[in-house]
Amino acid sequence: MFQTAAKTFSVSAATASAYRRVFLVGLRRYCKKTSTKLRVSEALTGAQLGADVKVQGWVRSVRPQKNNIFLHVNDGSSLQSLQIVADSKLNDPLLTFGSAVEVTGILKKSLHQKQPVELEAERIRVVGECNPVNFPFKIKERHSLEYIRQLPHLRCRTNAFSSLLRIRSEATAAIHSYFKNNGFVQIHTPTITSNDCEGAGELFQPSGPAFVDDNFFSVPAFLTVSGQLHLEVMSGAFSRVYTFGPTFRAENSQSRRHLAEFFMVEAEISFTESLEDLTKVMEDVFRSATECVLARCAEDVDLFHRHVTPGHRDTVEAMLNKSFPVISYTEAIDILHSSSEKFTFPTDWGCDLMTEHEKYLVKHCGNVPVFITDYPYDLKPFYARDNQDHPKHTAAAVDLLVPGVGELCGGSLREERLNLLMARLKRVGLEDTYKYLDLRRFGSVPHGGFGLGFERYLQCVLGVDNIKDVIPFPRFSHSCLL
Amino acid sequence: MFQTAAKTFSVSAATASAYRRVFLVGLRRYCKKTSTKLRVSEALTGAQLGADVKVQGWVRSVRPQKNNIFLHVNDGSSLQSLQIVADSKLNDPLLTFGSAVEVTGILKKSLHQKQPVELEAERIRVVGECNPVNFPFKIKERHSLEYIRQLPHLRCRTNAFSSLLRIRSEATAAIHSYFKNNGFVQIHTPTITSNDCEGAGELFQPSGPAFVDDNFFSVPAFLTVSGQLHLEVMSGAFSRVYTFGPTFRAENSQSRRHLAEFFMVEAEISFTESLEDLTKVMEDVFRSATECVLARCAEDVDLFHRHVTPGHRDTVEAMLNKSFPVISYTEAIDILHSSSEKFTFPTDWGCDLMTEHEKYLVKHCGNVPVFITDYPYDLKPFYARDNQDHPKHTAAAVDLLVPGVGELCGGSLREERLNLLMARLKRVGLEDTYKYLDLRRFGSVPHGGFGLGFERYLQCVLGVDNIKDVIPFPRFSHSCLL
Repeated sequence: MFQTAAKTFSVSAATASAYRRVFLVGLRRYCKKTSTKLRVSEALTGAQLGADVKVQGWVRSVRPQKNNIFLHVNDGSSLQSLQIVADSKLNDPLLTFGSAVEVTGILKKSLHQKQPVELEAERIRVVGECNPVNFPFKIKERHSLEYIRQLPHLRCRTNAFSSLLRIRSEATAAIHSYFKNNGFVQIHTPTITSNDCEGAGELFQPSGPAFVDDNFFSVPAFLTVSGQLHLEVMSGAFSRVYTFGPTFRAENSQSRRHLAEFFMVEAEISFTESLEDLTKVMEDVFRSATECVLARCAEDVDLFHRHVTPGHRDTVEAMLNKSFPVISYTEAIDILHSSSEKFTFPTDWGCDLMTEHEKYLVKHCGNVPVFITDYPYDLKPFYARDNQDHPKHTAAAVDLLVPGVGELCGGSLREERLNLLMARLKRVGLEDTYKYLDLRRFGSVPHGGFGLGFERYLQCVLGVDNIKDVIPFPRFSHSCLL
Repeated sequence: MFQTAAKTFSVSAATASAYRRVFLVGLRRYCKKTSTKLRVSEALTGAQLGADVKVQGWVRSVRPQKNNIFLHVNDGSSLQSLQIVADSKLNDPLLTFGSAVEVTGILKKSLHQKQPVELEAERIRVVGECNPVNFPFKIKERHSLEYIRQLPHLRCRTNAFSSLLRIRSEATAAIHSYFKNNGFVQIHTPTITSNDCEGAGELFQPSGPAFVDDNFFSVPAFLTVSGQLHLEVMSGAFSRVYTFGPTFRAENSQSRRHLAEFFMVEAEISFTESLEDLTKVMEDVFRSATECVLARCAEDVDLFHRHVTPGHRDTVEAMLNKSFPVISYTEAIDILHSSSEKFTFPTDWGCDLMTEHEKYLVKHCGNVPVFITDYPYDLKPFYARDNQDHPKHTAAAVDLLVPGVGELCGGSLREERLNLLMARLKRVGLEDTYKYLDLRRFGSVPHGGFGLGFERYLQCVLGVDNIKDVIPFPRFSHSCLL
């Protein structure tokens, strides 16, 4: 454009010089535009050494020295920040911990072993200021998980929580991959359902705005506690289905293991022959997701294994190195009976396993995940398949207990036999309002499934004590921030 | 075991013969066990010709002939069923349309061109009966989408709906892949939120059971209408985030395009420079998901393009072959003004675009998706970025309109400038109860995002008229089946 202008008109020297200046500014701008935009994780690979790049992110540290200033800039793409080296002239009072910056310069090999790459800055622009006095996080301070939990709108800016979110994202992807690679069809089971799952009381009920209708759906509706019924519907046409989404409990609980809204992975498999068809999938999901997370988020996981629960890495590796033992409920009761431990709750055959029992059993089995199978028939819901055994009457149900957390998965073969299901529904006084029996009338097949609590899975792998620290926005009684 | 027994003891001829019989039965059982279990889609590849296999599924057709009986068995792994050929002796009165079967036999090359592979049955076991008189689907009948919609617990057993579910699963996976491959971190934004999004009225409120608390969360809580606020939180630490989950509207609508619960893909991008940063991602998601679905679900998509909306394939290909035009709202108004079409609603600058306008604009642009940008400032919510232009005051917002459906995506750059945001919140009488302003205080960056209605996307690609036919369990006013 500038060249064309200069050729066409005859111009004075002054005008030519002005043109030249404008041309050079334009050229410089153009060159700036060709700085390759890189994410921090891409810059850190070192693949672009010598390149003119632009990096954008938030300042994690500022270290002014005599001639130079050193910054660390993080953009959430990795735990590691990119070191920026700049001439002191580029310093700016607004360049503070927490501020947002855009840096252009040349990627160079760093002399420090810890940082193979650094960015020699040519330009630093403060995009967004951050007053360090008001910012609730302080430079070089390690803030506790309890402290950052109070700041749900800012805690993603800490190392620990941004690591958690990257791990959560990778674990989610790994679980989807597992199911996809194994021929499962993903079903988006609904959040709002007219199925109150056995008439249990701990349900949220959504109500519409008053001006629409008192009863928006014309039938009682609830926030789902499980997608099982909807997956069982799909098990009449697909041999393998799964769902992964939010589920709800209106429990007035302040425990470290419960939330009012949490994510659950649920799978349903048709043409099952035994509980082994389920335990195999549960174990495989656990293994493949965990191996994937350890490989793809090594640094992030390391942060938890070093600073949050030192030594937890060994526990995780022990889990992966052994196959998960399978013991029956009856064997579990025998183990508890013959132990010298004093339990608060009874350990008689027919009693529910309590947290203290679950912990003992996991320890007893070598602190690895353990399957407990074939629970007393009367402890399990109406849909659990009757083992028709005597004198100890059991159902084909299975739980997976894991170190530190207790129950991670619960599942069962489902009663596919119409006459047995009808009899049991009648016995427990439930009506088939959900067309459940119809599913047994038209090509019913032996099937079974399970649910895995995703937050508990993360607690187990990372060694995080409180479930509120592994979900972006925890909901529990008396708390719904943001 | 049998051999050992025979060697150790000296036995009579009769006993030996009995042993032999038992041995042979055991051997046969053992051999049966070694039949490779195959899914129908695996069998159809033809990779295992000659193999002894076991296939399990539901009978889609039964055709008894003089010497043979022909079955089609489907297990949901593909639209195509596997043809079974069996000796008439294997026929069974329970072998009816809809029944569940397990077939073992040898995979052979078929003489028919349509079915490259067939299973020569050695054994057919009816696993679950299906009385064809009571079964609401009839053999060889094509049931309308309206009819099968009335049977949410069974409609997955029709060709059309099982195809839809496979497509939905693949499209979901393709969208996740796009974001993962492009450096987005997946965030599980919450379903229950205290954010009532601009005080809009169409919200569900979850109430806990009476015995827990009248106000479970101590603050008013709602079912989310958008994860934007929660993604914006994350945009303070990650340069690219997304979410994909259920969202809710308590709208008393019976339209073909609205549901009370629907799935939305939302993305938020930091360090944006212009709306182009958003339109690029919207267009790329659309293209990559659609190309993926067309490639991986060719037969399933074909069913819709042939039988549901004949000719729709051409529309879809036209969308993929052109880049999506971008026109400003002001240009759109000019186009509407200069058209000879008679519209019901006004087309003056400042008026909202209505469905009739959207349809006209899409047609005008060649029946391909079209972006409309820079809407009147006063039409857009408080968070849309002020373009600070005059005299026509606009905001940096963008919608994507698509053939047959209308609005598929809506997005905007977000107002990142604290003073402008504060002034606007004050002007519209909203308070910052959600810490929104805090996000602009500590390293605020230019950012923007959008939401894509997943069901509308499926409608657009498949040519499905009613949104209730592209979601497993549709929820709308006065309807919440299962």
